[in-house]
Amino acid sequence: MWMDSKAEMEWASRTRASFSRRVSNALLLFTGDMEYLDKFMQDKWFVLQLAVWGLRGVSRVILANNPLSGALILAALYWDSPWQGLLGTVGVLASTLTAVITGQDSGEVAGGLHGFNGMLVSLLMGVFSSAGDWYWWLLLPACLGSATCIFLYSGLATFLQHWDLPAAVFPFNTVIVLYLLCTGPNNPYFPHYPTVPPGELEHNGTELAALTVLGGIPLGVGQIFACGALKPSFLILGAVVLYSPLLAVHALLGSAVGILAGLSVAVRHQSLYSGLSGFNGALGCMAVGGLFFTFNWRTHLFAITSAFLSAYADIALSNMLGALGLPACSWAATLTATLMLLLSGNLATYRIPIGQVKAPEHNLRSRSQWEAGNTLDAESTDV
Amino acid sequence: MWMDSKAEMEWASRTRASFSRRVSNALLLFTGDMEYLDKFMQDKWFVLQLAVWGLRGVSRVILANNPLSGALILAALYWDSPWQGLLGTVGVLASTLTAVITGQDSGEVAGGLHGFNGMLVSLLMGVFSSAGDWYWWLLLPACLGSATCIFLYSGLATFLQHWDLPAAVFPFNTVIVLYLLCTGPNNPYFPHYPTVPPGELEHNGTELAALTVLGGIPLGVGQIFACGALKPSFLILGAVVLYSPLLAVHALLGSAVGILAGLSVAVRHQSLYSGLSGFNGALGCMAVGGLFFTFNWRTHLFAITSAFLSAYADIALSNMLGALGLPACSWAATLTATLMLLLSGNLATYRIPIGQVKAPEHNLRSRSQWEAGNTLDAESTDV
Amino acid sequence: MWMDSKAEMEWASRTRASFSRRVSNALLLFTGDMEYLDKFMQDKWFVLQLAVWGLRGVSRVILANNPLSGALILAALYWDSPWQGLLGTVGVLASTLTAVITGQDSGEVAGGLHGFNGMLVSLLMGVFSSAGDWYWWLLLPACLGSATCIFLYSGLATFLQHWDLPAAVFPFNTVIVLYLLCTGPNNPYFPHYPTVPPGELEHNGTELAALTVLGGIPLGVGQIFACGALKPSFLILGAVVLYSPLLAVHALLGSAVGILAGLSVAVRHQSLYSGLSGFNGALGCMAVGGLFFTFNWRTHLFAITSAFLSAYADIALSNMLGALGLPACSWAATLTATLMLLLSGNLATYRIPIGQVKAPEHNLRSRSQWEAGNTLDAESTDV
Repeated sequence: MWMDSKAEMEWASRTRASFSRRVSNALLLFTGDMEYLDKFMQDKWFVLQLAVWGLRGVSRVILANNPLSGALILAALYWDSPWQGLLGTVGVLASTLTAVITGQDSGEVAGGLHGFNGMLVSLLMGVFSSAGDWYWWLLLPACLGSATCIFLYSGLATFLQHWDLPAAVFPFNTVIVLYLLCTGPNNPYFPHYPTVPPGELEHNGTELAALTVLGGIPLGVGQIFACGALKPSFLILGAVVLYSPLLAVHALLGSAVGILAGLSVAVRHQSLYSGLSGFNGALGCMAVGGLFFTFNWRTHLFAITSAFLSAYADIALSNMLGALGLPACSWAATLTATLMLLLSGNLATYRIPIGQVKAPEHNLRSRSQWEAGNTLDAESTDV
Repeated sequence: MWMDSKAEMEWASRTRASFSRRVSNALLLFTGDMEYLDKFMQDKWFVLQLAVWGLRGVSRVILANNPLSGALILAALYWDSPWQGLLGTVGVLASTLTAVITGQDSGEVAGGLHGFNGMLVSLLMGVFSSAGDWYWWLLLPACLGSATCIFLYSGLATFLQHWDLPAAVFPFNTVIVLYLLCTGPNNPYFPHYPTVPPGELEHNGTELAALTVLGGIPLGVGQIFACGALKPSFLILGAVVLYSPLLAVHALLGSAVGILAGLSVAVRHQSLYSGLSGFNGALGCMAVGGLFFTFNWRTHLFAITSAFLSAYADIALSNMLGALGLPACSWAATLTATLMLLLSGNLATYRIPIGQVKAPEHNLRSRSQWEAGNTLDAESTDV
Repeated sequence: MWMDSKAEMEWASRTRASFSRRVSNALLLFTGDMEYLDKFMQDKWFVLQLAVWGLRGVSRVILANNPLSGALILAALYWDSPWQGLLGTVGVLASTLTAVITGQDSGEVAGGLHGFNGMLVSLLMGVFSSAGDWYWWLLLPACLGSATCIFLYSGLATFLQHWDLPAAVFPFNTVIVLYLLCTGPNNPYFPHYPTVPPGELEHNGTELAALTVLGGIPLGVGQIFACGALKPSFLILGAVVLYSPLLAVHALLGSAVGILAGLSVAVRHQSLYSGLSGFNGALGCMAVGGLFFTFNWRTHLFAITSAFLSAYADIALSNMLGALGLPACSWAATLTATLMLLLSGNLATYRIPIGQVKAPEHNLRSRSQWEAGNTLDAESTDV
């Protein structure tokens, strides 16, 4: 035998290294945007394709784009409430199918861009309905409302593309408000709970429970899917980590900022505990911190600013719409993110064109080479 | 005599044919857009020109463009209520004259594009006024409000032309809401009735009268001119048939869809009986079915969708604005039609540029030759 | 001596003429836009530069652009109430510094374009606060609100530049409404007075005091800075005269028009007396009469129209927002001025591109040479 022990050890270590590299490669396969999947699915059955499009759509709600994240999120929703899970599934399928039927761009459909608004409409209809779970008639407005999102999405996209802005969740926000206005709290067919604005005064001046408020931070991430339970919220957070850890950090950060903003203007305690104070901040923070802009310390500061703006705007809009018995949904975060995308000055230099938005880590890598030149430009336009 | 009886009969039949052709030609002269009239009127008195521009403006309210239709509609309004007829006449003249004075494009003025918003403002001021008929002071806000429409129309047209969108009845909807907000129900000079939202609960649970609801379908067409009487509504429908039978069919269809939508969310019965549930559906259906898009079975389905969207949006907006004591007018149909014009996908392939919109039958004829190529394109962009 | 008395007198008169020319030149130095100052300040200390930028920002509120006018206005505010003066100073500095930090265009910052919205937000927070003067905690939202204006200004400017429209005071109007919605009347930290809509009925039918109404005309100019005292209002008017007498005339004219409009729909007397009826009219009139359009009798008529539209729209919006306990601020004038800038027809021919807007007198001079050709164009597009 000519192989000595040293060579043997080297071989063993090399094998181990190659194994761990393979594992990490396999892990990397399931993180980020999983773009290779699109090519792989091209000649598969329509039902399989639809499933992937739908799961991408589910993850799009929380600004991710990964079918596995979508599956995890869907599992979290079914875990929290099977009826809500069903509504979400119906919503995402109804709107994706409507997009196929009305001939929307196939790339957009495959990217899940026509699923997330419908899913949100469906989920929120379930949350606001006062007819109880498994009220099957609710599937009718859920399907129609989800389908309507496609019309709004397509029209808005045409309108906004001049500024390279995404239609985002404007369609969901519009449709759910119109649905709630159509039916009203006492509707004989589709009754729903009236909304309590966060500025409403509390009858008994209870003490603020600090620990429960801390629980509101992960709940703020869950509330993006109208999910108010702690464990499913952590699963949803896990789904975001799978797509991009950086995005997950910003989600938690934004949710915390939202709770701070709520404390500063003394909103109802229930609003802090349930995570409703945090979810707009989370969305506003995620959009700026890494997704639509290359991540660095400057965009990170802008992301925190965006979280504060989203959170305060949400309190304001909730109080205004609450006077009409309506929820503010994610109007605040959507408007704030749109505003940040329109901004000139420092932030604009880090803007990623909408068509090239990928997972934050991917954005960072693809941009890092030509970053140096850009920061120079940014410096020279400074006052 | 060399002419035998067979030749005689042939000659007679040819004469009859030529006579009926002449009659049908004469009839065709008065249908559609009557474009030849513009050349004929060019060197006539200004008062005559103004009359034709005004009558075109009257017909523009219901998406037609034919002075004879306008005359029929004006007759219907005078038949229903001479005071309303007078207000309509004053409104259309005030806004057309303002357009001339402020130097708007002469082609647009001649096409009646600066008359319809003013007419609607004037009519609705009369309908909402609680000071009774022949309250002459009302002519002052009627004239000023109609004139204001020109400013809004011109400004909005500049804003929207980037997307090739029409200013439509946005000016009317804005001005009437501002007028009602300015004066309020208890104004000492210009009092008006408060609006009852359609979602308001009925005090006594009366049975729905099926026949009266059916009467709401033609009334929905009349309500486009704020006319709530059955016979004048049929005359208005006749005026639309004169311009384009296809448009009239879509008006009735849309009105019926609007009533269906109203039934599905249990609006007040009075809202169904009076045709107020139907008129937004009618407008939404007419805009898509043949006017802004070439008519075919696809656009026909989109027209029905548009009618449903308009009708539901109208219920939602009526409930929201009703909380402030305001009517929703035709906001819903105007917004929905604008959305449909922005849509990408299948529908966009049938879109007719705003500058080339004519009567649906004319649109159909001028497009039919290059239709084949277009559907192919539409097919290839399908998913 | 060879110099006779005639030559002596000539010399004396020449000296006098040269002296008066020098005085008038020195006066001219301090009127208009004082553009030479920018070059002079370029290499000075940052604090001095910031002071000039801030003072320009103060004068920008009333559509002027002159640091001396700004200083006079600031003096008037401190005269009326030192606390309000301090708030204004803090607001203009906070927003200008935010613009510097976020890397906004240095030319815009130097022109004071990033100061006026912040100042208004800060001033209005003080006016609406029911916590009394010298409530130091108020500086916190004042600074944050002023900083937020920069984000809205920058985003809106990008959005509106397609139509060559200015972001104007949209940011201020948005931020102040959001702030008031966030806190609400009974907020424990930042309480504020509820707003009384101008259409509210008066309990006792008091007679209108004609003289007090006349006093509302100059107060309408002061109310642009939320200043309700007569003498400081005259000082503010003086500051406008220093920048441009033509603008000052339009300010008074617009304020008078606003009071006329208020009388015509019977608003509360208090609204007329305090100048709140007039300030939107004043702003609407100033924007069209000489600032964004070359001054002549046509644009003068359009300026009066704009004043009426602004005033009526203000009454309407005040009634609507008042139902939610919110003020209408200068939404009406801002929207109306934006509409006038979008107008086609006669008015459009006199439009000055946003980048070249200077003091009305300067606009007049620089345009007068090529006016002839333009009016010809305007004539030929008339109907």
